Amino acid sequence: MPRDPRYDVLFEPVEIGPVTAKNRFFQVPHCNGMGYRYPSSMAEMRRIKAEGGWGVVNTEEMEISHNSELSPIPEARLWDDADIPILAKMVDGVHSHGALAGAELAHLGGGASNMYSREIPMGPSARPTDLLDPVNVRAMDKSDIRDFRKMHVDAALRCKRAGFDIVYLYCGHDMTTFAHFLSKGRNDRSDEYGGPLENRVRLLRESLTDIKDAVGDRCAIAIRFGLTLVPGPNGDQCDSENHDVVRMLADIPDLWDVQVGDWPFDSSTSRFEKQGHQDSHLSFVKKVTNKPVVGVGRYTSPDAMVSLIKGGHIDLIGAARPSIADPFLPKKVKEGRIEDIRECIGCNMCVTGDFRAVPLRCTQNPTMGEEWRKGWHPEQIKAKTSDETVLIVGGGPSGLEAARALGARGYEVTLAEAQSDTGGRVNVESKLPGLNEWGRVTDYRQYQISQMVNVNVYCESDLTAEQVMEFEADHVVLATGSDWCSSGIGRHNHTAIARDEGASVLTPDEISAGALPQGPVVVFDDDHYYIGGLMAEKLRLAGVEVTYVTPAPDVSNWTHNTMEQGRIQARLIDLGVTIVPLQNLAHIGLEQVTLSCMYTGRETTLPATSVVMATMRKPRETLYNDLLAAGADKACKSLTRIGDCLAPSTIAAAIYSGHRYARELNEPKIEGVPFRRELPALATD
Amino acid sequence: MPRDPRYDVLFEPVEIGPVTAKNRFFQVPHCNGMGYRYPSSMAEMRRIKAEGGWGVVNTEEMEISHNSELSPIPEARLWDDADIPILAKMVDGVHSHGALAGAELAHLGGGASNMYSREIPMGPSARPTDLLDPVNVRAMDKSDIRDFRKMHVDAALRCKRAGFDIVYLYCGHDMTTFAHFLSKGRNDRSDEYGGPLENRVRLLRESLTDIKDAVGDRCAIAIRFGLTLVPGPNGDQCDSENHDVVRMLADIPDLWDVQVGDWPFDSSTSRFEKQGHQDSHLSFVKKVTNKPVVGVGRYTSPDAMVSLIKGGHIDLIGAARPSIADPFLPKKVKEGRIEDIRECIGCNMCVTGDFRAVPLRCTQNPTMGEEWRKGWHPEQIKAKTSDETVLIVGGGPSGLEAARALGARGYEVTLAEAQSDTGGRVNVESKLPGLNEWGRVTDYRQYQISQMVNVNVYCESDLTAEQVMEFEADHVVLATGSDWCSSGIGRHNHTAIARDEGASVLTPDEISAGALPQGPVVVFDDDHYYIGGLMAEKLRLAGVEVTYVTPAPDVSNWTHNTMEQGRIQARLIDLGVTIVPLQNLAHIGLEQVTLSCMYTGRETTLPATSVVMATMRKPRETLYNDLLAAGADKACKSLTRIGDCLAPSTIAAAIYSGHRYARELNEPKIEGVPFRRELPALATD
Repeated sequence: MPRDPRYDVLFEPVEIGPVTAKNRFFQVPHCNGMGYRYPSSMAEMRRIKAEGGWGVVNTEEMEISHNSELSPIPEARLWDDADIPILAKMVDGVHSHGALAGAELAHLGGGASNMYSREIPMGPSARPTDLLDPVNVRAMDKSDIRDFRKMHVDAALRCKRAGFDIVYLYCGHDMTTFAHFLSKGRNDRSDEYGGPLENRVRLLRESLTDIKDAVGDRCAIAIRFGLTLVPGPNGDQCDSENHDVVRMLADIPDLWDVQVGDWPFDSSTSRFEKQGHQDSHLSFVKKVTNKPVVGVGRYTSPDAMVSLIKGGHIDLIGAARPSIADPFLPKKVKEGRIEDIRECIGCNMCVTGDFRAVPLRCTQNPTMGEEWRKGWHPEQIKAKTSDETVLIVGGGPSGLEAARALGARGYEVTLAEAQSDTGGRVNVESKLPGLNEWGRVTDYRQYQISQMVNVNVYCESDLTAEQVMEFEADHVVLATGSDWCSSGIGRHNHTAIARDEGASVLTPDEISAGALPQGPVVVFDDDHYYIGGLMAEKLRLAGVEVTYVTPAPDVSNWTHNTMEQGRIQARLIDLGVTIVPLQNLAHIGLEQVTLSCMYTGRETTLPATSVVMATMRKPRETLYNDLLAAGADKACKSLTRIGDCLAPSTIAAAIYSGHRYARELNEPKIEGVPFRRELPALATD
Repeated sequence: MPRDPRYDVLFEPVEIGPVTAKNRFFQVPHCNGMGYRYPSSMAEMRRIKAEGGWGVVNTEEMEISHNSELSPIPEARLWDDADIPILAKMVDGVHSHGALAGAELAHLGGGASNMYSREIPMGPSARPTDLLDPVNVRAMDKSDIRDFRKMHVDAALRCKRAGFDIVYLYCGHDMTTFAHFLSKGRNDRSDEYGGPLENRVRLLRESLTDIKDAVGDRCAIAIRFGLTLVPGPNGDQCDSENHDVVRMLADIPDLWDVQVGDWPFDSSTSRFEKQGHQDSHLSFVKKVTNKPVVGVGRYTSPDAMVSLIKGGHIDLIGAARPSIADPFLPKKVKEGRIEDIRECIGCNMCVTGDFRAVPLRCTQNPTMGEEWRKGWHPEQIKAKTSDETVLIVGGGPSGLEAARALGARGYEVTLAEAQSDTGGRVNVESKLPGLNEWGRVTDYRQYQISQMVNVNVYCESDLTAEQVMEFEADHVVLATGSDWCSSGIGRHNHTAIARDEGASVLTPDEISAGALPQGPVVVFDDDHYYIGGLMAEKLRLAGVEVTYVTPAPDVSNWTHNTMEQGRIQARLIDLGVTIVPLQNLAHIGLEQVTLSCMYTGRETTLPATSVVMATMRKPRETLYNDLLAAGADKACKSLTRIGDCLAPSTIAAAIYSGHRYARELNEPKIEGVPFRRELPALATD
């Protein structure tokens, strides 16, 4: 299908200083949990983005010195010449598809604790670092400022040698030395680098000029600039100093990449902000500079992109998360295959890779992070090697993805779903407050499957073991999901929580299905991801009096890794949910519960007529056990569980499980480690 | 000086199955934040322990499969043959000094989330993992149990190929699959691996036998066994099932390495437990088995060690932390140099390396983690290359260590201390509740310096810039320390906290010096390591009404990394300190303070007539500035700041700073990264 001409504007080339981007699709710098530590994985992930049509592909933030390093979080590194080959490999991959490669030089100052190098961080003024490590920044003296500028020049020259086309200075997210010099609060210097704004902007201006002089002949110089929000009469607004900075530096860089607020705001989840939430704040930039402007907004709709360009808001469509969910987004637009776009759901599973310091994964794109080590391509999958048939029981995320990927391999697939529609837990969870966009997980797969003649979906088919056996598929796959338990067993309780007979205990499944207990209700969260907080929110929105109790120190603790924790706890407080952290649930009575202090075991009571137990999920394994009892494991070529019915986890893990099954069916079994490893080199002395 | 014959018993050889340890000094497995990721660093650190006289040197816990991995925390790895060279390098280093090398095979089950491999963890029963990651363990079926046993055999065979003398099974700390099978709470299987104890111990027994069959001809088979504590009539006591397990397996392993409780209890800091705190619990083991028994207790006193052996408590003196603080402890005992032992202070700085996933460091031993990358040896330092003199101003930890290490190099050193004794902040902090052993930092250095004719210490010498200049030392080193600030500037406040005129605000320095404000007192902790919690404790012990306020979710948040957080918060609760987390301090009045919710900014008030501000420390830089103004940087060959007066941090960092200064004086300046790097190998395809 040919491309709609209204999208042509997205494929216009854009001049960026001495280089030209072939189109307006711009993968902004983004962390990935691979960086210097898994260099081949990182390089292949970036190469595939270029293959997918992104006109510009950037690195993540790149540590330019051992004096500013984020260990154990693996970012890009350019400490010395030894790092050049790693980066050159990425550049070569990006260039092989005609895209530009960009590098984001980062000096984090108080944003890093230097736990590996043990060097003392430096910044504008003596302060503790932002992380809670017992480390203080020392104030830079004139010789430090010279070193700092030279560090950037050296890094820019190394970037040029590695082949980069764009060299960025990172002055964003209130997280870097440039940003700290700009900050009135963080910079209390009395010399020409402190005080009035023209002084605070001096170091940034000098470094921009330095690297332009050093590599500007061949490389474009970009700035990633963070706008600070301050309260205004109509809600938060951009600090007026930001306007001044852009005005002062207007045409010095070759490109402005502008983001709004700190990282959690910039990369808000769909639960809290929708596509384009930064737009109104950054539209002033183009009025002030003649240079091209990049902005992000988790855009997945080409129509929205076109309107941003035509409206003169930005020149290049910045994207991190949409390029992770679908590395081939530009190519799909180019080829008129809009329906094939795998849209980011805004869950920030990708971001957790950075916080947990492991390679990023993506709910929508199970190949993310596996491009090199397993050789998984997001758009290609090996054709089937036999004519065997597959029956999948259960059409939740793992079953749908297995069906889709097996279908793409050419297998004859039958998918049986007990409910009236496929989607499983996604259908349930996407109706919880704020999670509407999660439905894209189902939308993408349902559409893809609808285009496949070799995949047949039967809803309202709640198969028994006997029916499964009668179907005589060569391979039987169970994707029957899991149920929330009411026992209370979970992370902090290895046995069931004691309760009086008749005590009312509900599960998240029941609440999601509409059960509405009379208050006062205690939500007990020993799961720590999103579900406990959502139960409290949903009940409170329905007017129920809710106390949220958790053994953790805060609400939905694991969502620190998705950068949502602050928003979630604020929302519950605003809604009037009472929050009782650091308490276990010891006993459930008819009118009250007994709590037990995590530190002292001391018991207290709370009035509660119902408890919602967000503690653990149990695999639905009845069908599996029935099939084993009936000998299905011997009658079929294989009987396999995937997704939550094997081990409950995230939607991302369920999709990964289904995808992996499809990749591996009838392929030679791998003995030992099922992926390529990236080991450190061993010194020979 | 010859060795006291009463220590001879420590140097008796001990038979361990088919191998013989040359003495009773046994470095038990301990994490180090290097593991597979920094293999040359790890190997050299272990080699140096063998050089220092440890008869047995073990690895840290060793992941035997990608199915059980702790990324990003770098433990040892033996996933497949590719890991053998790394481990063989360690073994060779250990063997080169006549010590035995041991490997601790670990399968962590629900103790690991497999964030890198993305494999589903497995264990006795379907449960969430212990970490808060959204991951569940799947229950092992019979085929999994076969795989699990084979995994251990394969790993043991690989260990043998790598040259190890001892192969451990890890069944400790409630953190491994063997321990989870043993647990009544975690194991609810109905087959022959669940139910009565003889079933729950089955897997451990089978695996012990398997690996004995596989490698027992040449390797000793050891078990690291964790005793569980349960409340008893006279305090906590060992769960009686533990006795039964030891009885059931008594002579199957060649060695019992027995520890008590979970890891935070086993490795308690000196703030909470003293040397030998596990003794009473583990003394039964030798009564039940004929095999040698290892126990730990942070022993640094050879007399205590002798009495343990002679009393028949244990056969081998297990040590992790004492071997980190002084890798040469056995050699010093052997050579009758007891006074030279650098005793562990029990601060658990070493443990933070594991939690922060970076190479371990040690307060007492600044060479820890630098053995390979900087070539620092704990007992050797390069002789001076010139006859230049050094004046050190300030005798706190950094000044003392610089003097000691420069003295060892042969330099003529003068140390001027303003107070009546050297020690600086260590003298102050070691008088705070529980920190008595921290005084060993000073004790060790004072004694070493007292033996050096080329180091002269002058106390009560508060030098002015003029006096420093008049001294005409070639090199001037400032180690003048830091002061706690009262402004409130810290991690969460970039500008001073507003206050009414006359409001009473004290610093930790003032409280430590004995100031005793009348209550109610608010301790505001925006430092997050130990000092805020200690201020609350000290004041409360003095009878003051105390409220502890912090922007963090819990007390002394960074002490999660030293495994003290639970003990600290419990102690404050028990003492009756009111804890108000997740609040910032917005304003200080004469009779009350205003707090601001970290989530919503909503303000509340608390009665308070004084505030203790544990927020940040400021370098003492008057002398430095005076010296710069007087041109000292030009008049001397060098003018250098070290320790807290350069950037306030931990005592460990101060000692490191002083040590580094001494190492680098008059050595060629290193351009670029000042240590050897361990980069991942880059695939060529």
